[in-house]
Amino acid sequence: MKPRISIITLAVDDLERSLRFYRDGLGLPTKGIVEGFDDHVLFEMQEGLSLVLYLRKEVDKISGQTNDIRSSSECILSYAATSREEVEKTIDRAVSAGGSLCGKPEEQPWGYFAYFKDPDGHIWEVLTGPAADLK
Amino acid sequence: MKPRISIITLAVDDLERSLRFYRDGLGLPTKGIVEGFDDHVLFEMQEGLSLVLYLRKEVDKISGQTNDIRSSSECILSYAATSREEVEKTIDRAVSAGGSLCGKPEEQPWGYFAYFKDPDGHIWEVLTGPAADLK
Repeated sequence: MKPRISIITLAVDDLERSLRFYRDGLGLPTKGIVEGFDDHVLFEMQEGLSLVLYLRKEVDKISGQTNDIRSSSECILSYAATSREEVEKTIDRAVSAGGSLCGKPEEQPWGYFAYFKDPDGHIWEVLTGPAADLK
Repeated sequence: MKPRISIITLAVDDLERSLRFYRDGLGLPTKGIVEGFDDHVLFEMQEGLSLVLYLRKEVDKISGQTNDIRSSSECILSYAATSREEVEKTIDRAVSAGGSLCGKPEEQPWGYFAYFKDPDGHIWEVLTGPAADLK
């Protein structure tokens, strides 16, 4: 297996709500819900990587999970901002769009960072500083 | 927010077990557990993207989750293989290394694909064909 990931898929309950958050709130580009493929939306991230939001019931079919378990502690997606201002602006936009802040922004020797949850509880880290440069 | 993801972090219970799976089993490159930073391991994927395996108790602190909820239906990471043979070989390696298969490989107009779970239940899709080229 080569060290490569092409798609990150997050399970969501409501595609319209997710579109409002990611497209309208955070400003990520997408064609939205495409006719005939109304179980997911795709966002093109950097070259070679897409973010897909996929209806949870479809992800449940793949995982074989039958009960209504939710967990915000499965994964974190990190966004490397270019400044403290961009960290704060991104967090503000996320909260305005319906996300929730996880704690306050923190300053550590390895960087300045903050976390928010999307409307489905998925965690994003927004960071800047040495840790963002290293990755 | 620019369309970019720098780090994907997965919560794991046991870093040594995860290393055996991802480094020894799947063959992903890593420096392993680095002294002084023994709560995570990092794999460099394509340029600009890292995969981090992070102890679940640390992710729990960020998410604010206090109970022992687990869910395999939160996210899926997709690996674009270059052939059906690579799909099958990757799945075989994953299972030999301690992963579990989710169903059988499937053929659809948009590609040939299969899913496996890592030792913590995180789902990976391995695909080839038109769907892999589009992303």
